[in-house]
Amino acid sequence: MKLLAEWRESAETWFTRLRDRLCDACEALERASASAMPAGRFERSDWRREGGGGGTMALMRGRVFEKVGVNVSTVQGEFSEEMRRHIPGAAEDPRFWATGISMVAHPLSPHVPAAHMNTRMIVTTRHWFGGGADLTPTFPVDEDTRDFHAALKAACMAHGKDHARYKRWCDEYFFLPHRNEARGVGGIFFDYLDDGDPALDFAFVRAVGDAFLQIYPAIVTRRMNRPWTEAERRALLIKRGRYVEFNLLYDRGTAFGLKTGGNVEAVLMSLPPAVAWP
Amino acid sequence: MKLLAEWRESAETWFTRLRDRLCDACEALERASASAMPAGRFERSDWRREGGGGGTMALMRGRVFEKVGVNVSTVQGEFSEEMRRHIPGAAEDPRFWATGISMVAHPLSPHVPAAHMNTRMIVTTRHWFGGGADLTPTFPVDEDTRDFHAALKAACMAHGKDHARYKRWCDEYFFLPHRNEARGVGGIFFDYLDDGDPALDFAFVRAVGDAFLQIYPAIVTRRMNRPWTEAERRALLIKRGRYVEFNLLYDRGTAFGLKTGGNVEAVLMSLPPAVAWP
Repeated sequence: MKLLAEWRESAETWFTRLRDRLCDACEALERASASAMPAGRFERSDWRREGGGGGTMALMRGRVFEKVGVNVSTVQGEFSEEMRRHIPGAAEDPRFWATGISMVAHPLSPHVPAAHMNTRMIVTTRHWFGGGADLTPTFPVDEDTRDFHAALKAACMAHGKDHARYKRWCDEYFFLPHRNEARGVGGIFFDYLDDGDPALDFAFVRAVGDAFLQIYPAIVTRRMNRPWTEAERRALLIKRGRYVEFNLLYDRGTAFGLKTGGNVEAVLMSLPPAVAWP
Repeated sequence: MKLLAEWRESAETWFTRLRDRLCDACEALERASASAMPAGRFERSDWRREGGGGGTMALMRGRVFEKVGVNVSTVQGEFSEEMRRHIPGAAEDPRFWATGISMVAHPLSPHVPAAHMNTRMIVTTRHWFGGGADLTPTFPVDEDTRDFHAALKAACMAHGKDHARYKRWCDEYFFLPHRNEARGVGGIFFDYLDDGDPALDFAFVRAVGDAFLQIYPAIVTRRMNRPWTEAERRALLIKRGRYVEFNLLYDRGTAFGLKTGGNVEAVLMSLPPAVAWP
């Protein structure tokens, strides 16, 4: 059986490789676009975290993706007094280690849904995986919503995970109580995943990444060459305002990043490039 | 000596009158602009709060002010368990009454500073005033900063309040720790003001409103007809991103409004009309 240190290395390596594949897929979409604008290319920048670790932010501004970022990071350190009370296993020992990948895509077209995918491995005196993927269209299309959920359901089914539970968790998590409104059309969300065998849990986490890598570019391809009106673009900018409200008011990942001294640009990479509040 | 009920009524009446004067001043600036765009006019909408009270939101989209809102509201109800622990006098009895005025101006021009002014009276088993005014230029101009501080200092001095303390409080409050950056160039901030005689405290609160009404339109007049470049406008949109980050991550008024079931549109009226994250 593998040691925990080996799982940590495997997770970090796999997240880095997934980042490369996601970036390649997004750049391929840029090249495939019929737009007259120039195709985008990712630019990468490394950052170091005071206190331990760091990451790489890959960011592209293109003609399909007005802004898309893929972050990988591996950080370690000690949780603050306040955070120890909220993180499993941190009360006994405040030290933590975490590796993860996070992607947020904000397409230029109001017909192409925004998307978010994140998977991570956290180690305190305990260890677990977390993550998910969800879709945020301005104008939901049944076919896209159905196919997105189906891809994630297949990943769950293949690894014995309860898709209905993870889908519900996603709906509950990505919700704006002050507006009584969902952020998007959902997907899956899971956390504190430790079903006893890290090999099985990690296989599932890989499957979530693979499923997202398969379905999201397929949906983008369907919608990216459809023309849009100024009114539709305006609706997109307003929809993005809700995205900002969610991320700054409620998102735990944002709070975690800002409170643990994560790189501000990387933590806030999720914020859309242009937003409107009516 | 006036009864508390009379102070409450006086505060509410005065805030409503100040709203009218602020709206008049902003509409006068719209008419005075040399812009070729049509001058803006305020539109008002009333809202009722489930649980007691309500308010009026006055909103204008113009050629000087891309978006400016002036809210007055008077609400009452009971604080939630969680809030009782944080609000003076609420542990003994959860009922509260509050009246206030809040103005947020987001000018179209990157040369005209954004501004915020708020004053309020809160009654639990205790009663106090709070408020402040602050300036957020994209490109700070020493003359404007100096005159803005001087006007507020004069209001403090005339009513025996400690301007240096309120100025420092403002600098500490309107600060983005994750960016180690001030939101703007400051102003004053005060809360839990109960110096023993409501007549004197209320006179000071009125003076803050009067000072803001005098100095902010004067600063806008100086800057509003200066042309700007696309790069300067882009800098404004990015500066506004910081404003959004502050209001959603840290602002107590936003949290108070959303947690006490305030009108969402009124609470989030402070958010800028167009924003960019680079």
